[in-house]
Amino acid sequence: MNLLFIGDVMGAPGRRAIAANLPALRERLKLDIVIANGENAANGYGITGEVARDLFGLGVDVITNGNHAWDKRDALGYILTEPRLLRPHNYPPGTPGSGWYVAEARGRAVGVLNVMGTVYMHPTLDCPFRAVDEALAARPEGVKVVLVDFHAETTSEKWAMAWHLNGRVSAVVGTHTHVPTADERVLPGGTAYITDVGMSGCYDSVIGMDTEKTLKRLMHKLPERFETAQGKGTLCAVYIDIDENTGRSRTIRRICLDE
Amino acid sequence: MNLLFIGDVMGAPGRRAIAANLPALRERLKLDIVIANGENAANGYGITGEVARDLFGLGVDVITNGNHAWDKRDALGYILTEPRLLRPHNYPPGTPGSGWYVAEARGRAVGVLNVMGTVYMHPTLDCPFRAVDEALAARPEGVKVVLVDFHAETTSEKWAMAWHLNGRVSAVVGTHTHVPTADERVLPGGTAYITDVGMSGCYDSVIGMDTEKTLKRLMHKLPERFETAQGKGTLCAVYIDIDENTGRSRTIRRICLDE
Amino acid sequence: MNLLFIGDVMGAPGRRAIAANLPALRERLKLDIVIANGENAANGYGITGEVARDLFGLGVDVITNGNHAWDKRDALGYILTEPRLLRPHNYPPGTPGSGWYVAEARGRAVGVLNVMGTVYMHPTLDCPFRAVDEALAARPEGVKVVLVDFHAETTSEKWAMAWHLNGRVSAVVGTHTHVPTADERVLPGGTAYITDVGMSGCYDSVIGMDTEKTLKRLMHKLPERFETAQGKGTLCAVYIDIDENTGRSRTIRRICLDE
Amino acid sequence: MNLLFIGDVMGAPGRRAIAANLPALRERLKLDIVIANGENAANGYGITGEVARDLFGLGVDVITNGNHAWDKRDALGYILTEPRLLRPHNYPPGTPGSGWYVAEARGRAVGVLNVMGTVYMHPTLDCPFRAVDEALAARPEGVKVVLVDFHAETTSEKWAMAWHLNGRVSAVVGTHTHVPTADERVLPGGTAYITDVGMSGCYDSVIGMDTEKTLKRLMHKLPERFETAQGKGTLCAVYIDIDENTGRSRTIRRICLDE
Ligand SMILES: [Fe+2]
Ligand SMILES: [Fe+2]
Ligand SMILES: [Fe+2]
Ligand SMILES: [Fe+2]
Ligand SMILES: [Fe+2]
Ligand SMILES: [Fe+2]
Ligand SMILES: [Fe+2]
Ligand SMILES: [Fe+2]
Repeated sequence: MNLLFIGDVMGAPGRRAIAANLPALRERLKLDIVIANGENAANGYGITGEVARDLFGLGVDVITNGNHAWDKRDALGYILTEPRLLRPHNYPPGTPGSGWYVAEARGRAVGVLNVMGTVYMHPTLDCPFRAVDEALAARPEGVKVVLVDFHAETTSEKWAMAWHLNGRVSAVVGTHTHVPTADERVLPGGTAYITDVGMSGCYDSVIGMDTEKTLKRLMHKLPERFETAQGKGTLCAVYIDIDENTGRSRTIRRICLDE
Repeated sequence: MNLLFIGDVMGAPGRRAIAANLPALRERLKLDIVIANGENAANGYGITGEVARDLFGLGVDVITNGNHAWDKRDALGYILTEPRLLRPHNYPPGTPGSGWYVAEARGRAVGVLNVMGTVYMHPTLDCPFRAVDEALAARPEGVKVVLVDFHAETTSEKWAMAWHLNGRVSAVVGTHTHVPTADERVLPGGTAYITDVGMSGCYDSVIGMDTEKTLKRLMHKLPERFETAQGKGTLCAVYIDIDENTGRSRTIRRICLDE
Repeated sequence: MNLLFIGDVMGAPGRRAIAANLPALRERLKLDIVIANGENAANGYGITGEVARDLFGLGVDVITNGNHAWDKRDALGYILTEPRLLRPHNYPPGTPGSGWYVAEARGRAVGVLNVMGTVYMHPTLDCPFRAVDEALAARPEGVKVVLVDFHAETTSEKWAMAWHLNGRVSAVVGTHTHVPTADERVLPGGTAYITDVGMSGCYDSVIGMDTEKTLKRLMHKLPERFETAQGKGTLCAVYIDIDENTGRSRTIRRICLDE
Repeated sequence: MNLLFIGDVMGAPGRRAIAANLPALRERLKLDIVIANGENAANGYGITGEVARDLFGLGVDVITNGNHAWDKRDALGYILTEPRLLRPHNYPPGTPGSGWYVAEARGRAVGVLNVMGTVYMHPTLDCPFRAVDEALAARPEGVKVVLVDFHAETTSEKWAMAWHLNGRVSAVVGTHTHVPTADERVLPGGTAYITDVGMSGCYDSVIGMDTEKTLKRLMHKLPERFETAQGKGTLCAVYIDIDENTGRSRTIRRICLDE
């Protein structure tokens, strides 16, 4: 099974980069399923129903999320109507939506699980390690292929999750830092892993935000608002080839394409 | 000028990976100068005079540092005797040692500057952006080639520093997260940049630390001590080709070699 | 029912202040039960079996805890043998010990519950608000009197807990900041509250630690070890008068006595 | 000299509590100068020119500030026109306004210095210990009376500042936590000190904010906006009696008065 996971979609440049590249990629890689992290899709801050529908229209099958999940309050209502939009699973009980969804691809069930780290992350959600254990314990029989989007800041929490899930899921992909890492590999248990997929957005920027304003805020400590950079968009993603009979990954490969 | 920068050397596996690979690299790449971040060289925690001498003996010309600088108190005395061992320059006035050193390579002066970020970093040092401005303003005439090791946690602070120094130094290399990023490039002003070089150490681990103990600490919240993983070492570094007449970089390339 | 709660006992000065004052206080206030936070009792860092037995010997009936609970690993074993020593209840399942204990005083059951905040606290435990809800839901019938030691950093998290438990427990007392607050009062629901009881220790210090070393560390950012200040000890506590038939508090009063 | 320092004025309830109590206090205590922290005066978030003029009109002579200084952008312009409105002195060079002002009271100069802590505070300003050293070194001759408003989160950073300035200024008063502490005293060097003065605002709340919304945000992790509680206001302040010839304080006393 051929899976594409697209990193944090950062505003319009990120969406344009998907529009420009996904059709050809789908054909070339014979993609069976496409998942994207949408926490910054609405101009850098959260996601709305409208923006989510736009991503689905571009060929995204499932949208994961992160600490920006509720930046647009529209998401709190929309998520009740759309199970393909996830939010981190380790939000407290009672939170709208879910962090788990079972899609279908090539006639097979594909579980997508979204959890958020707690180190240097706000808000502080429930323990992500126990959250994945519980979600996996509850998974319906027959769901062999599972991808986990672990949205976290530190490399240590992400690598810890990788080993925690090694041999138990098909893939653990990191999101949130907006910079792709070069440590993609298939772990000994058949779990594909990368610390961060990198954003899909404008890289002539500070992780997708306007450089001048961000620098000003960091240096002058004055309340400049972070604004999404509006230059050329680049798609960052990982392609993962999964044996759908065993759920084990064979290959993970980074993809980086300008719009 | 051919420069090699080696990321955080993590204990014995990191030092072994250097010993196993540097001689051949030196020849193949015609290296003029080798710089390594040594904050974890002494079994993961800081550096001592003995370990520093070991690194110099392996062919490292200058050693940069980070938040672990003083984990071994030996460093507080040793640094007074060895200008080739740096500590972050934005420590308060009066701190032993310096974050600036001018080496010589191919008959040319090469400035090395080490600063530490403040976002999610302890201790909280002085503003790194002003620190680099001051250090560069004070640089002796004729120092055209300058490399900055920016030891920081977040991708945003690192990218902000990249743009802040774009066109003003030859290279900005990030350290601290122990995972190599895939965003190396030469910025429009001729500044080579990478968000993180990645550690030189054992990658079958949680960023160089024993997996089992680290996972236990993260999940059980009990005071397990982080211990350096002892498996196979991998050298992670960047090769940078710099025009020594202008100080502008032509190329930056990631290097990853097992021991 | 007359209850005395003693704030974080900070090393020898704290224990001496208890020894010097508790006997007379017991008589004067006709104390039925004495509870003390012991997270710093062993020279500022955690608690051991020996130190706990010392506190019990001085007349303390129940010992609560905090982020320093496991500074001395001896506590991990000792707590299995001594139910009167608590640790924060919101540690993950499987942690040695418990955060809940039912003592007896004047023939009545007195529940003591210890939880830790998550804002600016390490490690990051489970949600304290849900933890108290669960612990109270599981409380045996007939336990009308309940005191909660909420060990937390910020005034906002503590006041939020106060209102969360208003009318549901007899008292919420804050610990951890080592400075007594002046906001003690009985809330409308009959819950006695104070943001922080203050430490029992040497106040000519930086919250119980040696002033010179602490200042040096804060200013010079060098790794000075925090050491417990060794001057005159002061007992800081709150006296709470509780109607044992209803569990409602009638009065809370601060007590501050030098050794 | 009789000085009154009023803690963080929290929205309308805080301003009403001043209006209701300051005239009588002025007379009874023969106040020579009144200083108030205004960082939350504009409905909990920052201060505007209009609100500052309101406070001056109520009898406040100097307004100090904190991390909320620029919540209302109006303050960035207004502060250029009004030297009696301070902002933390350890903002980087080039920041509008100043953290130092010399008022006149009873024919004597009274220096007011406002600095902000760095532990758990955002933004991260320059080292407050060096900032006060520099400000005091630059103080005009003849300024014997100096009050420092240290706006900080942790009790340790505040007590460290107390000892750092002991014998060098007339008073160090802490602000920011919105809860008055009970540790007011005159240190051996003649420096009056309190860890926190407490807010002037509505205490039936979570440190001045609406209880229900704050609890919801803490428990449900959803983006509830903190809103200023609108109940009865209480003035919290400290009265300090200073020997204007030596600058040493004789007395510090807490004052707490409902509107
Ligand atoms: Fe993101
Ligand atoms: Fe994120
Ligand atoms: Fe490191
Ligand atoms: Fe580091
Ligand atoms: Fe404590
Ligand atoms: Fe504590
Ligand atoms: Fe405030
Ligand atoms: Fe504040």
